[in-house]
Amino acid sequence: MAISDEIFMREALHQAMKAEAKGEVPIGAIAVLDDAIVGRAHNIREETHNPLGHAELLLLDKLSREQKKWRLDDVTIYVTCEPCLMCAGAMLQARIPRLVFGCLDPKAGACGSLYNVVADVRLNHQISVESGVLADDCGRLLTDFFRACRKKREKI
Amino acid sequence: MAISDEIFMREALHQAMKAEAKGEVPIGAIAVLDDAIVGRAHNIREETHNPLGHAELLLLDKLSREQKKWRLDDVTIYVTCEPCLMCAGAMLQARIPRLVFGCLDPKAGACGSLYNVVADVRLNHQISVESGVLADDCGRLLTDFFRACRKKREKI
Repeated sequence: MAISDEIFMREALHQAMKAEAKGEVPIGAIAVLDDAIVGRAHNIREETHNPLGHAELLLLDKLSREQKKWRLDDVTIYVTCEPCLMCAGAMLQARIPRLVFGCLDPKAGACGSLYNVVADVRLNHQISVESGVLADDCGRLLTDFFRACRKKREKI
Repeated sequence: MAISDEIFMREALHQAMKAEAKGEVPIGAIAVLDDAIVGRAHNIREETHNPLGHAELLLLDKLSREQKKWRLDDVTIYVTCEPCLMCAGAMLQARIPRLVFGCLDPKAGACGSLYNVVADVRLNHQISVESGVLADDCGRLLTDFFRACRKKREKI
């Protein structure tokens, strides 16, 4: 793990906190090109009532609109939690070369937990993955959020 | 296979032809709610330079915006070709109850070919699938398109 990976993951964590402040599942992502941050996004599924409102998907959408190309093959994506099938699939579509993520998602993760689609040599693209970067911080944010949600529900 | 499935798939095929007319990979999709078509989309990845430009994803985005909800659990999706990981993952996120598709995609299909993620009981949702509806028509459109692409490349 490079020190820069930690620095960039802190920025993704900052995005996750923005989601948390809105009552959204706290997941954040950033995009890095030539050591510079070129995009930031956080989960806004509830706010937008949109199943596509995951941080990674919003990031890919924004980047491709800005760069006017669907092949984002020079961009590294940092995300606080292991991507789901939809987001991992979108990164494959966008030909993302490298993905760095924080904590695992044992219930729906598609980059090493339930599936490892980004390493599947049967597909026309593979993504180099670094996992576990600031995993404790990234995971704690999610655990605390879901614990608070359960407590709220118990009170109702 | 219900007769209505064929009728709706013809509408999805019509969408695929719209994509073809633009020089896009000819894949089309429609959404059906209570036996009425509530959404139509076709692949526009090249036109929009967007990796998220697949017919199914555009359809889910449109529907959730219109219905102001991310949980589209009363909508059937008809698509001419087997969804990829991104699109199948998005349908799982949207809690789509039923998917009907035409031809298989042996290279990237995630609903029976390479993967069958929509039937994975480890995930928090499963989708009932009917495949092979007007498969020959749906597949021919794609085969002809890619054959023409290869011929164009050979001429260069």
